[in-house]
Amino acid sequence: MAKVAVLVTDMVEEVELTDPVKAYEEAGHSVTLVNSNEDSKITGKNGETFKADKNVNDVKPEDFDALLVPGGFSPDMLRADPKNAEFAAHFMKEEKPVFAICHGPQFLVDTDLLKGHEVTSFVSVRKDLENAGATVVDKEVVVSRHLVTSRVPDDIPAFNKESLNLLDQL
Amino acid sequence: MAKVAVLVTDMVEEVELTDPVKAYEEAGHSVTLVNSNEDSKITGKNGETFKADKNVNDVKPEDFDALLVPGGFSPDMLRADPKNAEFAAHFMKEEKPVFAICHGPQFLVDTDLLKGHEVTSFVSVRKDLENAGATVVDKEVVVSRHLVTSRVPDDIPAFNKESLNLLDQL
Repeated sequence: MAKVAVLVTDMVEEVELTDPVKAYEEAGHSVTLVNSNEDSKITGKNGETFKADKNVNDVKPEDFDALLVPGGFSPDMLRADPKNAEFAAHFMKEEKPVFAICHGPQFLVDTDLLKGHEVTSFVSVRKDLENAGATVVDKEVVVSRHLVTSRVPDDIPAFNKESLNLLDQL
Repeated sequence: MAKVAVLVTDMVEEVELTDPVKAYEEAGHSVTLVNSNEDSKITGKNGETFKADKNVNDVKPEDFDALLVPGGFSPDMLRADPKNAEFAAHFMKEEKPVFAICHGPQFLVDTDLLKGHEVTSFVSVRKDLENAGATVVDKEVVVSRHLVTSRVPDDIPAFNKESLNLLDQL
């Protein structure tokens, strides 16, 4: 089964973290919450808290098979530290499965590896995805080779289905 | 004296709204808080509330001499409604003074009119500004013709000084 890293920090849209993680674990995959703060406590946009399993400084992306980037304002905050983009760039370069929902694709702009991908996202960051060289569409889920993207919490069932499909092929 | 529109919605970084507004008003300029929500109540990132003077649907950008875009997550939320970018595009096209701090310049990406400008911003959105064709530097304040940008609340004194300088030239 696959080892999935979830790259996340404060202000995450909670359900975009908890619901996919539940789906991966129920399918038998293992999940590691990775953040870049000194404090391992993660406080979501609506006040729910989580404990990071690992700090991005203490893990290697090579140790994981896939990456989830939940939305909310966590993707914006991840962009403040270039170590996070370096971690994510490994998955994009190696074409390992990458799952990004809502504002999640915004963070992937910092990998400089979205060019040529078809993606969707929350409406507010679509211009940035276009400017990064991606083709942006408005669909509940888009699969572009190894990259799965969705727009909003309502898209989670479709997002999980396509994500699990890629994990099952590993 | 100048008429300054402040384009702002929920999750604004409060001090980036209140401090520049105080500086403009003390210099004799008039300020109008413009938002695009049906509810005129604006709730900032830290819980402070403000009342919008006008809705973006009820004003014309032609009625104002200058535009302020404070930071926080308000700029991201303004991007969800294209009417806001249309309002801001008038100031960029007409080269009227535009003042954007922290995440403020991120919102201006949606005007498609940052190309050729030198700007600064909060670190997390610099890649988006580069991809939009701007030259990004890391300085407390940057004046690029009619456009004044800054990075963080600590830069507010320099941001206000350069902004007032442009307003005084009107």
